[in-house]
Amino acid sequence: MAAKVLIASYLEPEHIARIRAEAPAFDVIYRPDLIGAPRFQADHTSPHERSKEEEAEWRALLAQAEILFDFDHTHREDLPELAPRLKWIQATSAGIGQFVKRYGYDRPGWIFTTASGVHARPLAEFCLMAMLMFVKNYPLMEAQKRDRHWQRFNNTELRGKTVGIIGLGRIGRDLAQVCRFFGMRVLACRRSNIDRPPSVDEQYPPQRLDELLPLADFLVLSTPHTPETEGLLNAGRIGLMKPGAVLINIARGAIVDQAALTRALREGRLGGAALDVTDPEPLPPDDPLWALPNVIISHHSASTADTENGKLTALFIRNLRRYLKGEPLENQLDLDLMY
Amino acid sequence: MAAKVLIASYLEPEHIARIRAEAPAFDVIYRPDLIGAPRFQADHTSPHERSKEEEAEWRALLAQAEILFDFDHTHREDLPELAPRLKWIQATSAGIGQFVKRYGYDRPGWIFTTASGVHARPLAEFCLMAMLMFVKNYPLMEAQKRDRHWQRFNNTELRGKTVGIIGLGRIGRDLAQVCRFFGMRVLACRRSNIDRPPSVDEQYPPQRLDELLPLADFLVLSTPHTPETEGLLNAGRIGLMKPGAVLINIARGAIVDQAALTRALREGRLGGAALDVTDPEPLPPDDPLWALPNVIISHHSASTADTENGKLTALFIRNLRRYLKGEPLENQLDLDLMY
Repeated sequence: MAAKVLIASYLEPEHIARIRAEAPAFDVIYRPDLIGAPRFQADHTSPHERSKEEEAEWRALLAQAEILFDFDHTHREDLPELAPRLKWIQATSAGIGQFVKRYGYDRPGWIFTTASGVHARPLAEFCLMAMLMFVKNYPLMEAQKRDRHWQRFNNTELRGKTVGIIGLGRIGRDLAQVCRFFGMRVLACRRSNIDRPPSVDEQYPPQRLDELLPLADFLVLSTPHTPETEGLLNAGRIGLMKPGAVLINIARGAIVDQAALTRALREGRLGGAALDVTDPEPLPPDDPLWALPNVIISHHSASTADTENGKLTALFIRNLRRYLKGEPLENQLDLDLMY
Repeated sequence: MAAKVLIASYLEPEHIARIRAEAPAFDVIYRPDLIGAPRFQADHTSPHERSKEEEAEWRALLAQAEILFDFDHTHREDLPELAPRLKWIQATSAGIGQFVKRYGYDRPGWIFTTASGVHARPLAEFCLMAMLMFVKNYPLMEAQKRDRHWQRFNNTELRGKTVGIIGLGRIGRDLAQVCRFFGMRVLACRRSNIDRPPSVDEQYPPQRLDELLPLADFLVLSTPHTPETEGLLNAGRIGLMKPGAVLINIARGAIVDQAALTRALREGRLGGAALDVTDPEPLPPDDPLWALPNVIISHHSASTADTENGKLTALFIRNLRRYLKGEPLENQLDLDLMY
């Protein structure tokens, strides 16, 4: 009998058709009427209320599912009881380690594949946007526009600037290539003892992170959220950063001491920040970060490109084919490393 | 006797020292006390008031000068009378054709070299910043930040987008390479019948410009201001642009019908604009462009990088050496083409 694949978050009909066409050995169940409608393209966490009958239908589908496309955000707590046949979840996010631990999904017989790589280019582009906005002095352009005041000013260029990339996964490596293209010096800090990629000028192990911090004009956090990285950029390390440096966080808010960051930005010790992620999310309306002119906030949306579902679908199809042949899946979550 | 070189706008002392060291055959006269102090780094149009004695000193220097580094903005009208020995002016700007015509400098025996190339990368970076800000939906980020409202949204990436580059000089060619690196489709319109560079997918002659306009997600004006290009992007051509497209003008304000552009932006037919140049400059405080949320204004400063004077100095030294040997100078202005 064909393994049942339940699609647990919205995908466009053409992507469903593609999965059915290119992985015909599976029974792909897609019931958009039972899951949340996307609030924006590539929205995978849209809430949904079901009637009693609908809920019963959904539970019957969960009970049969061997494979889930995306987590079922309507049954985070009780998924293990409701999905006794479940073997594999293909996530739509790269950073799922903390989520899997929190809900106790790290149980024998379940495997997880992340969306690592899907968001690399959109996030690298977001980092580059932020770097360019700071080297070109966009905050001044914005202020002069508000004041309707035309005044010439000088700015700079990326060539010769130093970027420090903390976490050299798919995003970090893609960003390193982008920075190299623009003539930047690329320093990276990574846990794995893997050969330095050609686009990285110097590679630091985590215990030498503090040597990298004073060198970087731009510090990019692209590391998974793990017990080791939580609070990694604490007040002391923010103090080690180069005066006027810009912090770009595309990882998770919990990696940064946000109060210390806010102080450093307010006092002008740091030149700016671009924060795709904050702690908490949503950022509360009274948070002082909102008011700082040298802060870009992107609402955890920098990775949410309209190209995402196409890339996720292609990844899922590759993994379905591997699953069928009993081959190791692409992007399998390592529960020890948590990425 | 050594030819006298008069430095007519501010350069940092280290650059003066470099010119003297690397072109020792010239008599380099630098009197920062007689020229305007820069208001920002790489400012070459700073006004300056001289006392009677200072003015007499300056005129004596002009009377001896064979070579000028930069135009003398304190004597635009009467330069020909005041500088009878002048043979060559090395400009600090790329777009000098209109200026040279306006002041009647196109006279026998005078040659001009432009700063073409010096500003290419800073301007290409500015264009890329603007493209990224629009694909990442920065205007929405800015609005949500102002409202302290956290809401996820989707955006897109550069890959697969089409850029149309009007004018394929040094800036246009550098931008083409940048766009190609990001997986964009590159269309270009150029006057010269030169082979298509490898980073350009398709090249249009000026008479086929109207075929290019509906195809471009981003339209970049990087053409010189000549009688041919004045008013080039008129209301009719703005109407031919792809709905939602973004205009980036790093050329000159006079190339665009600014009233028609403002209408198209206000009505949402165009997605946005990034204007380094406007008509007139400074843009008056009551101009409606200031109030449009989808407009980036960079105060004719996108090219003004702190790397500029170093690059100008290197170009000037190369040209001094060629001048000494009687070789053709780099970047010589063609008075017919006006670039």
